[in-house]
Amino acid sequence: MRATLVFPTREIVERYYVPLIYTACRTCYSELAPDDIFERAIDGRIPPAKQRELIGRVIESGHGSTIEHVVFTFAITGVSRTLSHQLVRHRAGVAFDQQSQRYVSYKKGASTMLPGTIAEADPELLARYEDQVEGALELYSELVDSGIPGEDARFVFPNATRTNLVMTANLRALIHMSGLRLCTMAQWEIRRLFQLIRHEVFAVSPFLGSFLAPKCVPLGYCDEAGNRDEHCPIRPHKDRVLEAWAEQAKRQSAQPPRADAPE
Amino acid sequence: MRATLVFPTREIVERYYVPLIYTACRTCYSELAPDDIFERAIDGRIPPAKQRELIGRVIESGHGSTIEHVVFTFAITGVSRTLSHQLVRHRAGVAFDQQSQRYVSYKKGASTMLPGTIAEADPELLARYEDQVEGALELYSELVDSGIPGEDARFVFPNATRTNLVMTANLRALIHMSGLRLCTMAQWEIRRLFQLIRHEVFAVSPFLGSFLAPKCVPLGYCDEAGNRDEHCPIRPHKDRVLEAWAEQAKRQSAQPPRADAPE
Amino acid sequence: MRATLVFPTREIVERYYVPLIYTACRTCYSELAPDDIFERAIDGRIPPAKQRELIGRVIESGHGSTIEHVVFTFAITGVSRTLSHQLVRHRAGVAFDQQSQRYVSYKKGASTMLPGTIAEADPELLARYEDQVEGALELYSELVDSGIPGEDARFVFPNATRTNLVMTANLRALIHMSGLRLCTMAQWEIRRLFQLIRHEVFAVSPFLGSFLAPKCVPLGYCDEAGNRDEHCPIRPHKDRVLEAWAEQAKRQSAQPPRADAPE
Amino acid sequence: MRATLVFPTREIVERYYVPLIYTACRTCYSELAPDDIFERAIDGRIPPAKQRELIGRVIESGHGSTIEHVVFTFAITGVSRTLSHQLVRHRAGVAFDQQSQRYVSYKKGASTMLPGTIAEADPELLARYEDQVEGALELYSELVDSGIPGEDARFVFPNATRTNLVMTANLRALIHMSGLRLCTMAQWEIRRLFQLIRHEVFAVSPFLGSFLAPKCVPLGYCDEAGNRDEHCPIRPHKDRVLEAWAEQAKRQSAQPPRADAPE
Repeated sequence: MRATLVFPTREIVERYYVPLIYTACRTCYSELAPDDIFERAIDGRIPPAKQRELIGRVIESGHGSTIEHVVFTFAITGVSRTLSHQLVRHRAGVAFDQQSQRYVSYKKGASTMLPGTIAEADPELLARYEDQVEGALELYSELVDSGIPGEDARFVFPNATRTNLVMTANLRALIHMSGLRLCTMAQWEIRRLFQLIRHEVFAVSPFLGSFLAPKCVPLGYCDEAGNRDEHCPIRPHKDRVLEAWAEQAKRQSAQPPRADAPE
Repeated sequence: MRATLVFPTREIVERYYVPLIYTACRTCYSELAPDDIFERAIDGRIPPAKQRELIGRVIESGHGSTIEHVVFTFAITGVSRTLSHQLVRHRAGVAFDQQSQRYVSYKKGASTMLPGTIAEADPELLARYEDQVEGALELYSELVDSGIPGEDARFVFPNATRTNLVMTANLRALIHMSGLRLCTMAQWEIRRLFQLIRHEVFAVSPFLGSFLAPKCVPLGYCDEAGNRDEHCPIRPHKDRVLEAWAEQAKRQSAQPPRADAPE
Repeated sequence: MRATLVFPTREIVERYYVPLIYTACRTCYSELAPDDIFERAIDGRIPPAKQRELIGRVIESGHGSTIEHVVFTFAITGVSRTLSHQLVRHRAGVAFDQQSQRYVSYKKGASTMLPGTIAEADPELLARYEDQVEGALELYSELVDSGIPGEDARFVFPNATRTNLVMTANLRALIHMSGLRLCTMAQWEIRRLFQLIRHEVFAVSPFLGSFLAPKCVPLGYCDEAGNRDEHCPIRPHKDRVLEAWAEQAKRQSAQPPRADAPE
Repeated sequence: MRATLVFPTREIVERYYVPLIYTACRTCYSELAPDDIFERAIDGRIPPAKQRELIGRVIESGHGSTIEHVVFTFAITGVSRTLSHQLVRHRAGVAFDQQSQRYVSYKKGASTMLPGTIAEADPELLARYEDQVEGALELYSELVDSGIPGEDARFVFPNATRTNLVMTANLRALIHMSGLRLCTMAQWEIRRLFQLIRHEVFAVSPFLGSFLAPKCVPLGYCDEAGNRDEHCPIRPHKDRVLEAWAEQAKRQSAQPPRADAPE
């Protein structure tokens, strides 16, 4: 699996992305024209630190449209069809183009993805898995050679078959998807993909990359029902946090009045 | 494969859907309140034929928001994962929930879809296809029995594996999807699904069902590049139609002036 | 201002909406076909209380697609253009058709909305406001009578001018919009609209209506930065809640070991 | 009114945008990894003319996802609220942030837009329009000075009041919006805006700018019902074009068999 940020470059992010988001934020609250704001942001009259500070506050506040103005395009290579079927369910702020099993003829053969649990299983079971998957790829070729259209021959391909995608997401979508997919309860392959994606965004902008985090980080708690009792260490569970507040409130209201309290 | 319209019933469509769309259309152009328009539509003061006539014109004009107010929910059973991966790419005006290969344990075994071209192929090839696919389902069960998590064992499942979905689409999305998927150049399985869907909508409303057609029908021509020369008989190709108009225009401008033409 | 739920009726909601959502939820985790699940839900073999219980958990878990399958259509009458400009910014899961100031000729005259703060202001100021607004409506008529197209004459209409809309939203969108617009910090007119909308949904389904609440209710805390210090009484502020948890954690880790603690 | 393309620059478009779209197109049909395709596109191993040729065909074919990967951000200044209310109705592939009349205090005064038909009307009518509009802006200031919140005082602002927006659209959305808004039947102000937008895109890429055209251009005919008889000269009306084809088909089928025709 590979995820490469093909656009924007570090230079483009550094020069334009923070000013663009800043301009979107400021336009809502300003009498100034947005192109004037942008000019002031890009030539440094508005200090970059001040721009980042406003952006940080706006993202925290959930004013999401402001971070829909900048996009990131990834070349995603060698993920399973299991992953891609899940990935393309994301709809808002994201665009996909995917290698088509209908139109690509796989003359060099398709390749497949091996889950870690099977790789480390009993060697005989692993061998059977590999035989099964290789048998599928071979049969695909024979079907095509016998005149079966590729769009039908592909019915034998396993979920493990690797595919490629181009994915473009705006920053809002990227934060939303990362919130779900970086969670320790996410499926391992898609979680790994978003770790690569976060790494790529960090490489061009530590500031923007810092917003790609499991959803518990901005929330301050984990809201996964399945995680209620045996939670991961990133954040405490929502139930625990709300209980702590309820107890504190109870304790404070139960406190005897202080001696110097006004009547 | 099965596609069942689970909502709305014929009674609900007949009583409410045409008045709802009519109300959306009229509200744009009327000083009347929309609840008044709706009351007049539903109690027949505005004759149903007049409502349908306006709706027909508005759909033809491409004023699409008016037909986003009514939805249709389908139970889709036994389609391949090849189909579902393509189907869920539709984003606007449509909602999906799909049987999860991660969470369903397939204790009764998964079932699979056989393409017609393979069913009618050389019997030996067909037997090999069936062995391969059955082998995959058996190995899945063994992997799970050996303690491999279902989310990893499913990597052996072929594209042919059947899945179920609940799909809700508003009328605009349904017309758009049908336009693409009822085309004779669409992949056979998804085309069959939309034939079933069209049949279901017709059964509750021949009027609304009549708008579910290959996109060439409202366009008046086929705009598929791959269909330029050897087209299907539903509509002539765009290039032919525009050529006919160009020739007519040329002929008319080349006509000698009529004897009685004013100078 | 008026907001009337024109679809569905109470009977339709009661009979179909809970089974539809239940079917969407169950399909993801079941080997059963979705039409079978729906039949069992609708004929009561799956007890309604059990259906509601699953739905409640799924909504709480944030698995939002399951509640995109049911929609609510409102006739909204007599809101200001200020409100409508804001309302139509909602994009996901919602459809709008609005009375057009370009095409409606306002022969009976347009009407306007008076903000409470101006109604209760100094009577002279109120009189000036009313003169100004009436002057705008009169000038509109004169402009149209003088042959200015309605699409240009409307430039004099004030924001206060009332407009009508038909709005259809799926349950997910309705919960999302209510989360923002029922907040005590929302603008008063749009908040009032969503109070009417909530009332209408409650009237046909107290169960589904119960999910329409300010976003602080499901979150357990208020996340409005502007509300940090002087918050409304619905929920405590996020900062207070997280501080309570941090203090509890500190206290617990600082506790001396109990006498009977294992070494 | 002003529309300035603030991102991307000409250099960024030239270097990256065509390769990005080409990569999205090719990935669907290729065994190559998308980052390899992108490298070959960007370093010229795939000649730019060949890239543009594929992109042209893909856009013509309606395979729209491929052109969702590149975006254009515009600073839009001084448009009326009439325009902005219409503009923000676009939902797919577009992001807006707009100057808020709730939060901006208009200390320097708001400014307004004058429609051409009123500018050229009877001078007395024009004077009345200007008085009315100026009166509204003055009253706004007085209301605010009297302590009325800005969010209520703005109810007197006319539709003519100017506003600013930041709009980002992907190429697909931009082509779609231009198709509607560049039509000669579109409202004059929004049409002028899209003429400015087209001009800006042309300035950075004549190739991509060439796709911004009234929808009749790619269709080959005008499909506006209101334009059936007295159409604009850009393209003939759909009815005329389909009639020409029908007549040609009739003429050809009515031709007497040629002497050398096979029986």
